[in-house]
Amino acid sequence: MDNAVLILEKTSFDNSDLDTVLGDATTFRLQLKNDIYHSYLTRPPPDVNEVKATLVCPATAKHLEKYTQQEMFLVTETEQDYRDITLPFLLESQFSLQWVYNILEGRAEQNHVVFDDPDPENGFVLLPDLKWDQKEATQLYLVAICRRRNIKSLRDLTGNHLPLLENVFFQTQAEVLSHFGVPASQLRCYLHYQPSYYHLHVHITHLAADVPGSGVERAHLLTDVIHDLRRDGDVCRTRPLSFPLRSNDELLARFRDAGRL
Amino acid sequence: MDNAVLILEKTSFDNSDLDTVLGDATTFRLQLKNDIYHSYLTRPPPDVNEVKATLVCPATAKHLEKYTQQEMFLVTETEQDYRDITLPFLLESQFSLQWVYNILEGRAEQNHVVFDDPDPENGFVLLPDLKWDQKEATQLYLVAICRRRNIKSLRDLTGNHLPLLENVFFQTQAEVLSHFGVPASQLRCYLHYQPSYYHLHVHITHLAADVPGSGVERAHLLTDVIHDLRRDGDVCRTRPLSFPLRSNDELLARFRDAGRL
Repeated sequence: MDNAVLILEKTSFDNSDLDTVLGDATTFRLQLKNDIYHSYLTRPPPDVNEVKATLVCPATAKHLEKYTQQEMFLVTETEQDYRDITLPFLLESQFSLQWVYNILEGRAEQNHVVFDDPDPENGFVLLPDLKWDQKEATQLYLVAICRRRNIKSLRDLTGNHLPLLENVFFQTQAEVLSHFGVPASQLRCYLHYQPSYYHLHVHITHLAADVPGSGVERAHLLTDVIHDLRRDGDVCRTRPLSFPLRSNDELLARFRDAGRL
Repeated sequence: MDNAVLILEKTSFDNSDLDTVLGDATTFRLQLKNDIYHSYLTRPPPDVNEVKATLVCPATAKHLEKYTQQEMFLVTETEQDYRDITLPFLLESQFSLQWVYNILEGRAEQNHVVFDDPDPENGFVLLPDLKWDQKEATQLYLVAICRRRNIKSLRDLTGNHLPLLENVFFQTQAEVLSHFGVPASQLRCYLHYQPSYYHLHVHITHLAADVPGSGVERAHLLTDVIHDLRRDGDVCRTRPLSFPLRSNDELLARFRDAGRL
């Protein structure tokens, strides 16, 4: 039997309702399927509002790790740490990116795509994150997935990527305003480091949404990244970057083994 | 009659319990008084754990504004915006800093002080933030208030302040480890921009604590600030800084009037 991760995202129920939800709500309506990722809607008992569920099946050990609450540690990665520890680790053990390529190649989630810029160099696909049920604009959570395939993360960005980043920044703002009525001044556009998958993407969330991963220890405002790269095209490759890792993350073990924690 | 803001900070009750707490818990035990700020403990009905309360009395319009949920807007402030809009606004309308001087001069909160470095240039006072009830180390929230009085915020920092910032960074880590057993790798040390008071201070929170104000749109990791100042001593004065402002913040009105939103 495959492992599976089922994430129930609360819309208006407390943790104390979880047992009720899990116990009685057996009708899950499939909204979206892409590779191993599935998104469902379900209608639990009448006193609890509709619940959004995400199923990852089959789930790898890395998925189980991602969705389990664990002690966190902050690592500060220098340029040399990246070369000696992080990059070798990524090259041997990254997540499959098949679901990303499915989106970019029009094989999955096409009815969810908000905007598609097909330019192979600077284009991107804008679509709702699985965590957003698309009901409240103040909970808006979109992801802009870049078409270019050779950029793993923030660490790889150089001044040469400014046209791509600026294109994502400005087109996303215009599209979010026209589709969801949310002005740029109410958006939080940022990259994660470390990201959860190593294909360049930008998170766009409403400033009012208290979303996981928007903390200073993991998020980098796109406007800051663009500004910094304009001043120094090597800044992302060379500066120390801090990020949290879960206690059972293999990357944390590698930093620990190298005496860097 | 004076206005007052009473903030109830949950330890282990849900919002639904708030009415119960407010209705029945009438015994508030004063823990700390400094200028207009008061911290209380109260024991509500037996099925609800102890509750920590903060009272600000008399509260100014700016306090009421600070503690009221409002629509937020992200502003990106350039060097020129700071000179033309923010600085003039600060000079005419900042919060009173009397409560800060009370702490620094030993007239208030002395029994709460965790560590005191009396050096007038690079010293600081480390003490628990009002928001932390000091029970769970994983909820740790301390503030390091610098002794030097001429630094309003992150914007004023230059390379000359590196000895101060490094002193705060390293001494705080050592003191937090010895007092609370939390290692540096589980701390989030950051500055706010805009801060809520214009006397330089650093926030130290446990990485596991989901605290307000630790989001990428307002927080700046101290380790990043130190690194950036080492490379360019003018970076804080010259770089654009983004921050959220509440819809009724006078500073937002000034940015709007200047066509900068």
